[in-house]
Amino acid sequence: MDRIGDPEVLQLVDVDLEAPGPGEVRFQVASFALNRADLLFMRGQHYTLPVLPARIGSEATGVVDAVGSGVSQFKPGDRVSSIPFHTTRHGVQGEYAIVPEEFLVAWPDGVDAHEGCSAWMQYLTAYFALVEVGRMTEDDYVLVPAASSSAGLGALQIIKMYGATAIATSRNYKKKARLLESGADHVIVTDSDNVRDSIMEITGGKGVRLSFDPIGGDFLASYVDALDQDAIILPYGLLSGDDFKVPVAPMVRKSAIVHPFSMFNHVNKPDQLARGKDVVLQGLRSGKLRPHVDRIFPFDDTVGAYNYMESNVQMGKIVVEVSKDVF
Amino acid sequence: MDRIGDPEVLQLVDVDLEAPGPGEVRFQVASFALNRADLLFMRGQHYTLPVLPARIGSEATGVVDAVGSGVSQFKPGDRVSSIPFHTTRHGVQGEYAIVPEEFLVAWPDGVDAHEGCSAWMQYLTAYFALVEVGRMTEDDYVLVPAASSSAGLGALQIIKMYGATAIATSRNYKKKARLLESGADHVIVTDSDNVRDSIMEITGGKGVRLSFDPIGGDFLASYVDALDQDAIILPYGLLSGDDFKVPVAPMVRKSAIVHPFSMFNHVNKPDQLARGKDVVLQGLRSGKLRPHVDRIFPFDDTVGAYNYMESNVQMGKIVVEVSKDVF
Repeated sequence: MDRIGDPEVLQLVDVDLEAPGPGEVRFQVASFALNRADLLFMRGQHYTLPVLPARIGSEATGVVDAVGSGVSQFKPGDRVSSIPFHTTRHGVQGEYAIVPEEFLVAWPDGVDAHEGCSAWMQYLTAYFALVEVGRMTEDDYVLVPAASSSAGLGALQIIKMYGATAIATSRNYKKKARLLESGADHVIVTDSDNVRDSIMEITGGKGVRLSFDPIGGDFLASYVDALDQDAIILPYGLLSGDDFKVPVAPMVRKSAIVHPFSMFNHVNKPDQLARGKDVVLQGLRSGKLRPHVDRIFPFDDTVGAYNYMESNVQMGKIVVEVSKDVF
Repeated sequence: MDRIGDPEVLQLVDVDLEAPGPGEVRFQVASFALNRADLLFMRGQHYTLPVLPARIGSEATGVVDAVGSGVSQFKPGDRVSSIPFHTTRHGVQGEYAIVPEEFLVAWPDGVDAHEGCSAWMQYLTAYFALVEVGRMTEDDYVLVPAASSSAGLGALQIIKMYGATAIATSRNYKKKARLLESGADHVIVTDSDNVRDSIMEITGGKGVRLSFDPIGGDFLASYVDALDQDAIILPYGLLSGDDFKVPVAPMVRKSAIVHPFSMFNHVNKPDQLARGKDVVLQGLRSGKLRPHVDRIFPFDDTVGAYNYMESNVQMGKIVVEVSKDVF
């Protein structure tokens, strides 16, 4: 992209292949996954602002073809997935990507290329929010508003992995059965159910201690009276595009706080990143974490893939296949 | 008060003198101080809801005349001040008040009755918020919006007691000189100054790490880009009456959180209360903390005192004198 705007600003451009710098790894991309953050980034609305001309994207899977000086964990031929990291211009979408070594992981057996690039944003986001910030235990009820997004689905799996109780919300009653299949213990349909009353009934009056909430606007008001003591509200992703409105008095009654959340505030802390990598790899190997891929687009229809994302009909990750020949 | 409403619901009513229960102390009231929380309480808008018929008020000074069983720290004749505690009907405004022993302190020498009842809400609120929650150090810049309220003035003194830098804001340029006299290191006049730019200039680009903010609504947006890393926003008091709007993306950039605040979430924790009592008594004795009394009303004009509070022209505490004969 050489300007800010809608998905149409993305263009396929031939560029010279760069060599990886010190500590960096270059890999040939098999597939990459889309994230809603990419849409905010290309429009200049993300907390990370693009430095133009910019590449885009943070999650890809592929095979290493070159390593920079000092790289110790990877060698050409290794199959790797990238972990989203804070970048203003070196996105991973393309035929080749260059990523610092610490933001790559070996791609585990039993996970295909499309799943491999669909795992890290959703699981690390939920892990850092619910476990590193929220200190989730099996006694907690956790609210997952807008649960049919990939971040929401990832959160449901992380919550189940830790033995807590997941309460999903969705506007659309049609998604209820799929959310229950995807790990939700309970589903609240916000178009027809009273959110507060439903939570109080489900939790026997205890309320939710954590809420992983991308909705913003007035939505918190619909459940603020159904919070557990010392609740933590974790706004992420900014789906509504407007401010997150906090009703102060009911929050004070529950001694609750609002912790606006991004994985980028955690992925750059080596100890947290190491714990996150371990948890997600363990979950992928055991099958407790299994990315749901909604649809796969060809590389030359990446713009179409982003337009599909904006339609909001998907459930799970949207992936673009770059090359079948890589592996 | 036997109904919810404006200050006119407050009536002087003769009632039988109750005996203090176990652990309780009765004292004859010399004077009491008003708080904005009282206005929210009488209108049913406070996080503590009244149980009718209710008495009102949380800060009074007087002389003990009876103690309940098990009371060990006070005896008749002692001069005491009450510390605000969580009550739904036993307010301290009246000729006599009954308060649990742990929410009384001996009234130190050198502090008169009006100052004695004006100290505890303002200093404990700021102490719990800035020190117990905010872990304030002398390296911090602390924003005090609407600083000419009694809570704001108390915060300025607590900030100076801990050696941090206090940046006050006020809509009214007329209050600037008084705020500088009252301990503010810097004053931003919000009607004419750009809040963000002023903070960045004052802090040399570092930003404020703590904000003790009663304004709510859109005000946070005016300084969210001038936060220090890991900032804590402490909304209290709900002056604006509406929600506290949190711009998520700029908060995430600074890894900042919103911690809606009330002293009532801290005063019931014995270890925090003990530390708070020590700090405030030490400050009162050393003169670093000195309540500013704006105006004193007679007991039979308590309604007038609350109406004066709503005029917003005061700077400091509004006190009602009940009896000169008590001491």
